[in-house]
Amino acid sequence: MNTLGKILTLTTFGESHGPAMGGVLDGVPAGVAIDLDGLQRFVDRRRPGQHTGASKRDEKDRVEVLSGIWQGKTLGTPIGFLIRNTDARSADYEEMARCYRPNHADYTWDVKYGIRDPRGGGRASARETVARVVAGGIAMQALATLGITVTARIEQVGNRSGLDDKEIERLIAEAASKGDTLGGIISCTVKGVPAGLGEPTFGKLHAQLAAAMMSIPSVHGFEYGDGFDMASKCGSEVMDAFVMQDDGSIGTVTNHSGGIQGGISNGEDITMRIAFKPVPTLMRDVPAVDCDGNDVTLHPRGRHDACVLPRALPIVESMAALVMLDNYLIKKTNVL
Amino acid sequence: MNTLGKILTLTTFGESHGPAMGGVLDGVPAGVAIDLDGLQRFVDRRRPGQHTGASKRDEKDRVEVLSGIWQGKTLGTPIGFLIRNTDARSADYEEMARCYRPNHADYTWDVKYGIRDPRGGGRASARETVARVVAGGIAMQALATLGITVTARIEQVGNRSGLDDKEIERLIAEAASKGDTLGGIISCTVKGVPAGLGEPTFGKLHAQLAAAMMSIPSVHGFEYGDGFDMASKCGSEVMDAFVMQDDGSIGTVTNHSGGIQGGISNGEDITMRIAFKPVPTLMRDVPAVDCDGNDVTLHPRGRHDACVLPRALPIVESMAALVMLDNYLIKKTNVL
Amino acid sequence: MNTLGKILTLTTFGESHGPAMGGVLDGVPAGVAIDLDGLQRFVDRRRPGQHTGASKRDEKDRVEVLSGIWQGKTLGTPIGFLIRNTDARSADYEEMARCYRPNHADYTWDVKYGIRDPRGGGRASARETVARVVAGGIAMQALATLGITVTARIEQVGNRSGLDDKEIERLIAEAASKGDTLGGIISCTVKGVPAGLGEPTFGKLHAQLAAAMMSIPSVHGFEYGDGFDMASKCGSEVMDAFVMQDDGSIGTVTNHSGGIQGGISNGEDITMRIAFKPVPTLMRDVPAVDCDGNDVTLHPRGRHDACVLPRALPIVESMAALVMLDNYLIKKTNVL
Amino acid sequence: MNTLGKILTLTTFGESHGPAMGGVLDGVPAGVAIDLDGLQRFVDRRRPGQHTGASKRDEKDRVEVLSGIWQGKTLGTPIGFLIRNTDARSADYEEMARCYRPNHADYTWDVKYGIRDPRGGGRASARETVARVVAGGIAMQALATLGITVTARIEQVGNRSGLDDKEIERLIAEAASKGDTLGGIISCTVKGVPAGLGEPTFGKLHAQLAAAMMSIPSVHGFEYGDGFDMASKCGSEVMDAFVMQDDGSIGTVTNHSGGIQGGISNGEDITMRIAFKPVPTLMRDVPAVDCDGNDVTLHPRGRHDACVLPRALPIVESMAALVMLDNYLIKKTNVL
Repeated sequence: MNTLGKILTLTTFGESHGPAMGGVLDGVPAGVAIDLDGLQRFVDRRRPGQHTGASKRDEKDRVEVLSGIWQGKTLGTPIGFLIRNTDARSADYEEMARCYRPNHADYTWDVKYGIRDPRGGGRASARETVARVVAGGIAMQALATLGITVTARIEQVGNRSGLDDKEIERLIAEAASKGDTLGGIISCTVKGVPAGLGEPTFGKLHAQLAAAMMSIPSVHGFEYGDGFDMASKCGSEVMDAFVMQDDGSIGTVTNHSGGIQGGISNGEDITMRIAFKPVPTLMRDVPAVDCDGNDVTLHPRGRHDACVLPRALPIVESMAALVMLDNYLIKKTNVL
Repeated sequence: MNTLGKILTLTTFGESHGPAMGGVLDGVPAGVAIDLDGLQRFVDRRRPGQHTGASKRDEKDRVEVLSGIWQGKTLGTPIGFLIRNTDARSADYEEMARCYRPNHADYTWDVKYGIRDPRGGGRASARETVARVVAGGIAMQALATLGITVTARIEQVGNRSGLDDKEIERLIAEAASKGDTLGGIISCTVKGVPAGLGEPTFGKLHAQLAAAMMSIPSVHGFEYGDGFDMASKCGSEVMDAFVMQDDGSIGTVTNHSGGIQGGISNGEDITMRIAFKPVPTLMRDVPAVDCDGNDVTLHPRGRHDACVLPRALPIVESMAALVMLDNYLIKKTNVL
Repeated sequence: MNTLGKILTLTTFGESHGPAMGGVLDGVPAGVAIDLDGLQRFVDRRRPGQHTGASKRDEKDRVEVLSGIWQGKTLGTPIGFLIRNTDARSADYEEMARCYRPNHADYTWDVKYGIRDPRGGGRASARETVARVVAGGIAMQALATLGITVTARIEQVGNRSGLDDKEIERLIAEAASKGDTLGGIISCTVKGVPAGLGEPTFGKLHAQLAAAMMSIPSVHGFEYGDGFDMASKCGSEVMDAFVMQDDGSIGTVTNHSGGIQGGISNGEDITMRIAFKPVPTLMRDVPAVDCDGNDVTLHPRGRHDACVLPRALPIVESMAALVMLDNYLIKKTNVL
Repeated sequence: MNTLGKILTLTTFGESHGPAMGGVLDGVPAGVAIDLDGLQRFVDRRRPGQHTGASKRDEKDRVEVLSGIWQGKTLGTPIGFLIRNTDARSADYEEMARCYRPNHADYTWDVKYGIRDPRGGGRASARETVARVVAGGIAMQALATLGITVTARIEQVGNRSGLDDKEIERLIAEAASKGDTLGGIISCTVKGVPAGLGEPTFGKLHAQLAAAMMSIPSVHGFEYGDGFDMASKCGSEVMDAFVMQDDGSIGTVTNHSGGIQGGISNGEDITMRIAFKPVPTLMRDVPAVDCDGNDVTLHPRGRHDACVLPRALPIVESMAALVMLDNYLIKKTNVL
């Protein structure tokens, strides 16, 4: 249930305020050079406090690789890793333990398991994604050796698109100053993908990508190629005509299809868009209920992002990278 | 690769013009009453020729159950089933075998497997979905005994929404008369879902639903709850406040979240929207390439839907039903 | 639950006296030539009535391939197939439905599912294995193109070993004449296996082979290489010394290890032995209980083998072939 | 590939001389009380140096639970854990890196992955099993709350059976003094198992147990019930007659079947026997080859057990416990 993938599998663990987050990335091919410093830098992109000017670098989110990489290369064995939770302040959570915050998983979790770790959201915290980024960073490095790159960028914050970094920061700060929060849209492009990756029925490449992206906390929508817009077009408007390319391979003139035909990559860029809901934790009083059904008022507490998009970029890239590498490996089994 | 699900698993097979389509639905609990006539009627909703006035009923798409159901009840054993391909006209496919149609899977399939059955699209044909509908119909009946219902409806055809059945038919006929095709949007609602279904990390209920829906041929987008719209809203605008319900259970006043919090159902209706691209086969000359990269022109042939949405309704319902029943079963293992 | 394998997966279905047995073999690489007549002959080796002199050939157990093979070659798509149950005589099963035969699965099945198809043992019948042999026969043909062969032979019937076919028949006939039954041991050898197949931890090649063989009805024991005898030996007695072979590859002088080291094939013959219990259905009065716990006496009925070993040979070969081909494919994903 | 189980899944990682061994045990039901001190004691049974008189207790093999257990109870979330490798002496392994020891996995590993960590056997070391014992210990505690117990005992060391602990130690010391090693047989009994656990086709309970046991390093054979002996008996000799028990439930008078009928538990004790080969590392000069195929002589080095059986007891119990708990959970999904 906490495992993703078929040949390349990622299994993660960890509660937000427990001793550590971590995971096991299994199925990475043997002999791939891994730059652990580069991996740390990739993971650092997801860290809190990176997107407000001056660096607040401390030793948080230091990746510890426990197995599977030796002398700078993958062994073909499972890569176990962890990231300690050093900065957790779990003070008075007794109140939280009895309280269901709106748009959070407190209530649903209690119904499902009958028990939960309320400290910092427990396993339901977005902190869980740090393990995805470690694994995704490794997958990115393996893909890079194949000439495959994954890039995510913020396309929309709230209802505003076409923003540069500074405008994004200002918009988020503005919402935060009102105790409110923002969502937005991240687009992601995978370049250099050979044609032929993906499974044609239930495992369509875009179905796998959708599942991976929708599993990121706060994501409410996924589309690839022209996506929802395609629903409004006539067939004649979205036809990606084939063309012989200079290198003798077959390409398409346009890419409404987002690089995937029938669930299988066609060699064009794979494009997709992912919609994030606004952060559910407001910095203002919020009405809630307790586990007995009584109305209570939640007062703002803790430190929370007013918008997750800047930190979500490496998460989106990681999920795409994990799916792409898995499918690259599966492809090898299509012929004897 | 042709298998969906964890406890409830569906494995399908079949090429469009081969002897039969079929599948194995495994993990259906024992002792569930199955009405095979009702199942046939459900499958009939997907049949071609149902949506143009007078009935063209013939014996096509007759479901043959081969195992797993006895004396009207499930045995807990795998349910094997098939649907014969009786009406396949596979005449001159030699041309098709060498030709890559735009926005189809011909090219990607050839790259992936180095071989393909070109007759009627082979395994890449949407005919593949008939096996999903058989399995989905069985899942629907099991869910019904639990008070869970799944309903899909056409929300948009091309760029027009709010249409009744007659208007939908007219719009499609209009496009067809120009040799063009239409896409659209189907919405789907699951009612009666108990809180607590879904897995909180990679197997979030909406991630599973997304993968299931995106695996339907022609689907280019998925969203749940307020979906992409949610990205443009502030956190304070989409808060689903909790409320005690008359029966003593906890509900929410609004349902921006689409019945899922943190990947787990919260007892409200589960709502989602699925975007279909327009049918890629136009009834007009279309430029294509052959497998040597030469330009060719495809002339219209065969009979094709100008819009798949009417026939896609039971497919969408089936995919939702399979995911919901699987998660209902998984939920049972959360406590000793 | 009714699925075996990881990349190459076999899902089977069918009750003994239902309409058909069948399965889906998914993950067979594309482009493999399959001789369907040869496949039928392989399946025929498992048929009843083959081992008592004159041929009783009829149309029973005719394999119908429904997908995945076209113009004599695999398509890379799932191979659906079925075998009709033509000769089932399900007459008076009401008594059987209430009765638990000793050493059969009647009682355990009822406890597990609360329902069962009592006709001919339902899904618990060894007839289930016909689907394995169809799939195994396909795997055998794929392996043959790689130079890998699988051969099973009867090593022991009852407490007698070193028997030829005639003596085996006589021994079985003797037991049958007393209304009794026999078990025995089948050995199986896989030749031509390249070194490097198998997974070193939970998926050790011999662990996969053990699971596959132990899943055959009536099997009570599995060993590979010197097996249980190895437990009695000193380390110095069972050392397989390495030796350079004429072709420059590394081999071993002896093969106590049965061709597997650390769960991975080493290029030597893979050897294993499988123990079958005697058939539980005696042709004499047998004490049993009914589902209310009352003592009842079962009178002999139906036609049953007095020893399954002759018919089990292609089943054993099939299970070995499925495991070997799956691991051959998995091996391809070990490097980028 | 490094994952075991279906609902209850164990994924392990770790090289013998890397930073740590560890794993993720996912699917443990929520709300189960876990005694971490008891868990440590269980893991300690596997530690080296436990079986030679006075305790050599040090901080080795200290289990660190990183998630999934809070305030003494399971959360239903994945249980991540690790055990540091504190005592690894990886000095001069350059020689080992180029050398293939007979009856070890050095050669097969190199062929499979093209790379390996030669320090202490790397991932192929039996040290890998420590992660199994941590997970198995947790499963044992969960089973205990259900009244299910698992007990393994040494039945044979070398060719001697019926030994008490002292005789076992003496026998092993004797072999060690000659630089030789011993194998043997461990029997394992599971008591208190409710009827109805196990899957009737590929997932027969004994097939799962066989795979689990055969995946333990050095295991060469598995049997359940009367096992290989059953092959030599007539059907009339091994019939387990049913009998009504005092509590009104149905039992059997004898238990040749080892508590399993048709792959499903019948409520009797589950019995099995597991054959271990002698330890392949002798404390004497051993001929080997290097990776270029040259003959070399291996001189004894390091500290190795002369017989693994005493330390293997908790490993066998762990594997049985993991399989039993998984099947207990799967059973819950057999009815709606």
